Amino acid sequence: MKLRGIVSYPITPFAGGRVDEVLLGRLVEDMVGAGVHAIAPLGSTGVLPYLSDEEREQVAEVVVKRVAGRVPTLVGVSSLTTEQTVRHAKYAEKVGASAVMIIPMSYWKLGDAEILGHFDAVAKAISIPIAVYNNPATGGLDLSPDILSRLLRIPNVTMVKESTGDVNRMHRLVQLCGEDVAFYNGSNPLALAAFVAGASGWCTAAPHVIPRLNVELYEAIERGELAAARRSFYRQLPFLQFIVAHGLPRAISAALELMGTQVGPLRAPLQPLGPERVAELRQILVDLAILPAA
Amino acid sequence: MKLRGIVSYPITPFAGGRVDEVLLGRLVEDMVGAGVHAIAPLGSTGVLPYLSDEEREQVAEVVVKRVAGRVPTLVGVSSLTTEQTVRHAKYAEKVGASAVMIIPMSYWKLGDAEILGHFDAVAKAISIPIAVYNNPATGGLDLSPDILSRLLRIPNVTMVKESTGDVNRMHRLVQLCGEDVAFYNGSNPLALAAFVAGASGWCTAAPHVIPRLNVELYEAIERGELAAARRSFYRQLPFLQFIVAHGLPRAISAALELMGTQVGPLRAPLQPLGPERVAELRQILVDLAILPAA
Amino acid sequence: MKLRGIVSYPITPFAGGRVDEVLLGRLVEDMVGAGVHAIAPLGSTGVLPYLSDEEREQVAEVVVKRVAGRVPTLVGVSSLTTEQTVRHAKYAEKVGASAVMIIPMSYWKLGDAEILGHFDAVAKAISIPIAVYNNPATGGLDLSPDILSRLLRIPNVTMVKESTGDVNRMHRLVQLCGEDVAFYNGSNPLALAAFVAGASGWCTAAPHVIPRLNVELYEAIERGELAAARRSFYRQLPFLQFIVAHGLPRAISAALELMGTQVGPLRAPLQPLGPERVAELRQILVDLAILPAA
Amino acid sequence: MKLRGIVSYPITPFAGGRVDEVLLGRLVEDMVGAGVHAIAPLGSTGVLPYLSDEEREQVAEVVVKRVAGRVPTLVGVSSLTTEQTVRHAKYAEKVGASAVMIIPMSYWKLGDAEILGHFDAVAKAISIPIAVYNNPATGGLDLSPDILSRLLRIPNVTMVKESTGDVNRMHRLVQLCGEDVAFYNGSNPLALAAFVAGASGWCTAAPHVIPRLNVELYEAIERGELAAARRSFYRQLPFLQFIVAHGLPRAISAALELMGTQVGPLRAPLQPLGPERVAELRQILVDLAILPAA
Repeated sequence: MKLRGIVSYPITPFAGGRVDEVLLGRLVEDMVGAGVHAIAPLGSTGVLPYLSDEEREQVAEVVVKRVAGRVPTLVGVSSLTTEQTVRHAKYAEKVGASAVMIIPMSYWKLGDAEILGHFDAVAKAISIPIAVYNNPATGGLDLSPDILSRLLRIPNVTMVKESTGDVNRMHRLVQLCGEDVAFYNGSNPLALAAFVAGASGWCTAAPHVIPRLNVELYEAIERGELAAARRSFYRQLPFLQFIVAHGLPRAISAALELMGTQVGPLRAPLQPLGPERVAELRQILVDLAILPAA
Repeated sequence: MKLRGIVSYPITPFAGGRVDEVLLGRLVEDMVGAGVHAIAPLGSTGVLPYLSDEEREQVAEVVVKRVAGRVPTLVGVSSLTTEQTVRHAKYAEKVGASAVMIIPMSYWKLGDAEILGHFDAVAKAISIPIAVYNNPATGGLDLSPDILSRLLRIPNVTMVKESTGDVNRMHRLVQLCGEDVAFYNGSNPLALAAFVAGASGWCTAAPHVIPRLNVELYEAIERGELAAARRSFYRQLPFLQFIVAHGLPRAISAALELMGTQVGPLRAPLQPLGPERVAELRQILVDLAILPAA
Repeated sequence: MKLRGIVSYPITPFAGGRVDEVLLGRLVEDMVGAGVHAIAPLGSTGVLPYLSDEEREQVAEVVVKRVAGRVPTLVGVSSLTTEQTVRHAKYAEKVGASAVMIIPMSYWKLGDAEILGHFDAVAKAISIPIAVYNNPATGGLDLSPDILSRLLRIPNVTMVKESTGDVNRMHRLVQLCGEDVAFYNGSNPLALAAFVAGASGWCTAAPHVIPRLNVELYEAIERGELAAARRSFYRQLPFLQFIVAHGLPRAISAALELMGTQVGPLRAPLQPLGPERVAELRQILVDLAILPAA
Repeated sequence: MKLRGIVSYPITPFAGGRVDEVLLGRLVEDMVGAGVHAIAPLGSTGVLPYLSDEEREQVAEVVVKRVAGRVPTLVGVSSLTTEQTVRHAKYAEKVGASAVMIIPMSYWKLGDAEILGHFDAVAKAISIPIAVYNNPATGGLDLSPDILSRLLRIPNVTMVKESTGDVNRMHRLVQLCGEDVAFYNGSNPLALAAFVAGASGWCTAAPHVIPRLNVELYEAIERGELAAARRSFYRQLPFLQFIVAHGLPRAISAALELMGTQVGPLRAPLQPLGPERVAELRQILVDLAILPAA
């Protein structure tokens, strides 16, 4: 699997306290239709850690079946324990995921041997590729470029998603692993800098709202059109900053509601954005011509 | 419930992949016998987040029954979702816990309204007291003295456990809530400073190994014997620093094994301390006359 | 020199752009008269880094002469270059200072060898004791307990002033250097915790305003009266928090002005506290019965 | 003055404890000859804060005269006090500097009004443009994009040098001030990301060693050749990382010595790189074909 471009993260919509399978399918369909290059269910945006084991399996299956091989699927399978991570990784493989993505969630901070042991155990249990996901702001554990480079030596650990928002981490990864290292940027406001540093892709929930702008930025970079890439980036930046500042599930849900799609309540303790934030978001969407001016 | 003194945190021992109920009972018995003032199962030390729902219920029941009212029990019931937290809080109340303890675990950082809503929902569901637990290093969310003081206005939220290790947080809590505020220190190396600042208790896993030293420090403070308290504190400090530096479940398990009690493997991805660390710990226990010199 | 107790830091008053020698003498006299145990001119409070070389010599001389041996004097001699630090240390010795205090100010962060070389050069140039001052918030360089313990092996480096506000640093210093290590706390809100941890003294500008409360806290600790010490501490804490939050020269100057002493303008770019802050300070002084209620 | 490209920072060479004017002139000549776009004496690299007032005037005059208008000169005039900053700014203007650069050095952290007052006072005293320099790692004060945008409203404050190493700061500056804002990147490893984000220039001491690579990167960006820019960047990155990690004056001096130019001792407490670091640097220079393989 050679994955490049926009890796799109669906939210998990709810109805009556359960996953809304129909809407989830439609949201994924919209993304694929808009030209994104991969679909990644059960990420932070999809509130993975807030779902039960059964819901996680349900989401994995619904999304992989709906995508039906048109683009690769990267299914999030992270759990606090190694045993549960292996369980979900096997399930993802069984339902046909192209790859799994794992953030080493921590309560107790993990040492290097513990991190390596965790990934090694999952890698031995499945045959599909694994993407290591580094996001200390949510997962609570920071994987240095050095430990990432060691994880990439595990045969089917082939990708890194970096969400620290520090482009220097990406530079060091390239220096440690060579310019062909498959790393993906998960920090939305770093989209331009990361592509320029050599990122293979951009992991983002933004395609729920601005898929064409996301793809446009990637394509400008691919064509080497720096001025066009910069223009596209600054155009979408206020939206990217907003969704990062206010939490992806909250912000994307609010945007979808403003655009007319009812995605159901967030799972408590998460609450929807307050009215001031929603007004701010509405203006950003007006500026992007996604919503009409009031 | 007026709780003061040493609040003791048992590890969760395993055997054959399951909770070792017999050993858990014995460990709790040892603590009660040594004079600690409360027992708090299902804390960070007890690897709460790594247990299944069933295991959590099992541990709560075993410990509360074993303590049998001789000292208060504070049962950890934290979960990422409000719904699961309520479920475990109700179970703790049902089996007879004196109080529950809740750390607002976070994946997505919570805003003030979300934190308040979370505790409010649990408080409405049970009748026993609630202790709010602040530990950003494990839970990923930092509760300011201000939000703690607001949580204490919820009727049955009556206690705060502070584990940031910053004595200034405790000063501010006293300033905001009055000198009778029931706050407990969860940062082992801050034990002396916290008692002096007015802490009602010290939440610690150290009584697995040095219960008499822990109680001695508290009693010296209670008698206003500053020099004795300082002497006791510096005597136990190397052990306290060690267990904090290397993770409570790993360090306490290693100490118990050195002292002859087999507590079973840690739950992966957690791994036992390496041999160098164990040698360092052995020397600390020798210096404390807990182990004989080699 | 065995120094214990309240080490008092005078501000540097100005009149017409020059050091106001008369007022400086009077402020020092007030402190000595109120019972403080040492005087430390040319500290952060005395805006040392904002003074010319000539002004620094002037302040050193005025203060040392005025104190006239009634209590020890610790003269700040810190400069960015070693050469200038040596120059000022020699001058302090010449005018009769009991000791000098040195914060290794940094623009470029210094390595261990550079720090040791800096103190070694000063130590060789003078015969009076040296106090090492650690305050990363102002000096820009953080001296670990380990490097502090190495500095204390230089023969006439005999004291440490710790202003990080982390009581754990003090614990480690005692562990590394023994319980007789002469360390002084420079973080005002940590006054109680530091004394309890074994600090020999408290370095503070507060005696400009509340000298008796400062001395009272120290004396309660000396008598081992924990409850009295805690009561005294919490009484003065709002004032201590205020002066730390708003910068010692700004806050102490404002307090002195409220109490009727005109200390002249701060040296630009420093500016006086705004009216809202002054009102807040006035209320604190009213609560302490230093000012009458409006 | 429309300044774009490579802004080159000379070290300050010493001989016999004094500024080596002849060598300083030659180093500047080398930079201009190699095609850099501006010369900036008395920066962090030039150890500005470690120089006496007289040495600062000497360096300013020597460099401006040597450049003789062939490229713009930006003279560093930062001091802790406003009065001294004004004095040096006036001197720089008098000797013919194109502009001055000011980092608001802090001992006591400055509030917004103090920062604005500081720059306002200097701006009123001179007629040439002012560049605001933000570098919390050396200056100790962090200027937010918001306060930078306010400083840019002072008529002759026309440029910003950003050295935080966070590309998001640059994005916000563009958002606040418009895409024509003249900002310059001072974080060497961020050279590529900053240019792509819209930086007008790159402030760097690297042209002492690799001027053609520095200019090559800028020119690739100017031509919109993204792949060439990336290649050039990764080629020079190990050198850039090294000089940042070990302090610009230490690292550049060591490189010049390895290349055969004796630049004299650093000013104490700064010390030269140790032999291991020098060996590491030598290998980097060998890899860049600047030194022959051993």
